[in-house]
Amino acid sequence: MASSPVKRKYTVVEPGSHATGQENPEARSKRPTTTLKEFESVWPRIMGDLGAHCRQYKLPKQSLDWFVQSLNYNAVGGKCNRGMSVVDTASLLLDKTLDPASEDYFRAALLGWMIELLQAFFLVSDDIMDSSKTRRGSPCWYLAPNVGMIAINDAFMLEASIYVLLKKHYRQHENYIDMVELFHEVTFQTELGQACDLLTAPEDHVDLNNFSLEKFTFIVIFKTAYYSFYLPVALALYYVGAATPKNLQTCLDILIPMGEYFQAQDDYLDAFADPEVLGKIGTDIQDNKCSWLVNQALRKVSPEQRKLLEENYGRKDAEKEAKVKGLYHDLKLAEFYQQWEEERVADLRKRIDQVDESEGLKKEVFEVFLKKIYKRSK
Amino acid sequence: MASSPVKRKYTVVEPGSHATGQENPEARSKRPTTTLKEFESVWPRIMGDLGAHCRQYKLPKQSLDWFVQSLNYNAVGGKCNRGMSVVDTASLLLDKTLDPASEDYFRAALLGWMIELLQAFFLVSDDIMDSSKTRRGSPCWYLAPNVGMIAINDAFMLEASIYVLLKKHYRQHENYIDMVELFHEVTFQTELGQACDLLTAPEDHVDLNNFSLEKFTFIVIFKTAYYSFYLPVALALYYVGAATPKNLQTCLDILIPMGEYFQAQDDYLDAFADPEVLGKIGTDIQDNKCSWLVNQALRKVSPEQRKLLEENYGRKDAEKEAKVKGLYHDLKLAEFYQQWEEERVADLRKRIDQVDESEGLKKEVFEVFLKKIYKRSK
Repeated sequence: MASSPVKRKYTVVEPGSHATGQENPEARSKRPTTTLKEFESVWPRIMGDLGAHCRQYKLPKQSLDWFVQSLNYNAVGGKCNRGMSVVDTASLLLDKTLDPASEDYFRAALLGWMIELLQAFFLVSDDIMDSSKTRRGSPCWYLAPNVGMIAINDAFMLEASIYVLLKKHYRQHENYIDMVELFHEVTFQTELGQACDLLTAPEDHVDLNNFSLEKFTFIVIFKTAYYSFYLPVALALYYVGAATPKNLQTCLDILIPMGEYFQAQDDYLDAFADPEVLGKIGTDIQDNKCSWLVNQALRKVSPEQRKLLEENYGRKDAEKEAKVKGLYHDLKLAEFYQQWEEERVADLRKRIDQVDESEGLKKEVFEVFLKKIYKRSK
Repeated sequence: MASSPVKRKYTVVEPGSHATGQENPEARSKRPTTTLKEFESVWPRIMGDLGAHCRQYKLPKQSLDWFVQSLNYNAVGGKCNRGMSVVDTASLLLDKTLDPASEDYFRAALLGWMIELLQAFFLVSDDIMDSSKTRRGSPCWYLAPNVGMIAINDAFMLEASIYVLLKKHYRQHENYIDMVELFHEVTFQTELGQACDLLTAPEDHVDLNNFSLEKFTFIVIFKTAYYSFYLPVALALYYVGAATPKNLQTCLDILIPMGEYFQAQDDYLDAFADPEVLGKIGTDIQDNKCSWLVNQALRKVSPEQRKLLEENYGRKDAEKEAKVKGLYHDLKLAEFYQQWEEERVADLRKRIDQVDESEGLKKEVFEVFLKKIYKRSK
């Protein structure tokens, strides 16, 4: 499978671009990052592998066509941030640009696509569980013509595809079983986070007693941080052969709090960002979400304010939503968030600064992640 | 975890009990088979392992309680034929009875419970996809109070539990990765079978052109035979350390056709067995099932009979169902089945007779399976 070299956009970690008083890490590379076009260029080969696997079973054509359609509809079309960060992290760790036409690029991108398949498995099923209507501007898969609840089995097959690909391409890798176990563990963690989220914040039953910062933290770490932050870097470490216990632990120690920070920020933006800039209108308050903001509010409210929250949170009603936003304002949650953010970022910078690079890990990996998050407005 | 020895029922492979003219294999053992009570006695320890795993993650209590409830509701309460056959097969292969209080028994039964977890994962989700109402005499999990679509995530967690347990108890086994891959492959195969079944025979759209014996065979082998027939014996072979490539291939060569025969028989009983004896009323005709019978009928019908089938198959209407049954009678499908059964059983006996026992496999394993199926009436 050949793919012609494609132009790459260059991003530079700029020195002095950070906002706190701490010493800034110097930019050490002008490493190009991969593009969505490059990343997507390996997808046809992955489809070919999965199709060949099914044909070997003599899967009837109608079912094979359906599986192909499900794979294309559900795994492709997103921003692929998680998947591409495997390639970029691997490239950083190796200190070399991976030629998109090369086998090395394919093998790194393949690991990234496995995260995208895992995410597709979660999204197809989450959309059913949340009764969502659209995803990436199209109807959710279960709402697409003639799909319905077959989508559940399609979700299973997206997950199963990960292990078909891992076996085909990484069976000879010295860490093959570790990579399989990593996917198992992260999958189960994400499912536990989803279970906790569904039980803590059902859309149709408001009970603020059910919320707590501890549950918020559990949901965020398990439902999002492990698969979105830790998994891409851990896979890149396996790819370059530097997944030592120490390096993996360092990744956990930095990327899990970073994922927590990311979600708190996401919740902050949902209520406080300009919808024009954010690109969407926040719905967390109406959706009864166990968000960072409502949990901080619950820690600060007077008994009367709590009553207001009880009566207005989680209702599909713009006036009630406005009352909650008014309370957030009275409690100065925006200012509180901004101060909290500085503290968290300072702590993350300190952790990054202390990274031991002797076993092949690099501070820059984390700096790149943090740079994408800090002070983002959308 | 101790379990007092429990009385075991003894079953004997009786010589001379077979109905064909072929030479019967002699009974070589009076090996006791395990009981449901013994098999279920190890479940609390498995629950303890899964609970401990979740507590290590600091899963909030509400979510842990939910998971425990889902595990007990969905994995326990069935006949556990698949799970128990791992213990019985292992016992046969080792030529010794496993004491239910022993660690050896636990480790074999654990593998059996993994099949039960896999089946629970399939059943919870199949019930949603099929809009089923009851399972094992209780409401389907998704219809139980306060469950709904959370059941989808619960199904995922049942599947994930397999790998938690496999890692905890079999990580040091020389075939650990092979066992993981076996579960992956059988899971994917079952999902492919389910996909083909859902697409071939949707409950709400009758199209007999979509049916064929080839599709029937694919669905049966993939949706049922791999996980119900091959998986228990393959796991028992790993357990006793006799999972050589040759032995695994022998299992496939016998157990996959045996699963095919089993399902054809199931379909025959659905239409022709006395509901009093069968213990249920067959619904395949009304449910538009791609059954062995309808596919055989399609091969035998005249153009007029085909028209009758087109107009009456797959309708929720007792009169139309009766017309289809009348056609089955006119086509002499019962007699045809009985003759077909004898041929298939003769072929299976021949295959069993040719089993090479030099690598630790035993003919008796297959004889026991066949004996449970042949001429069953329910």
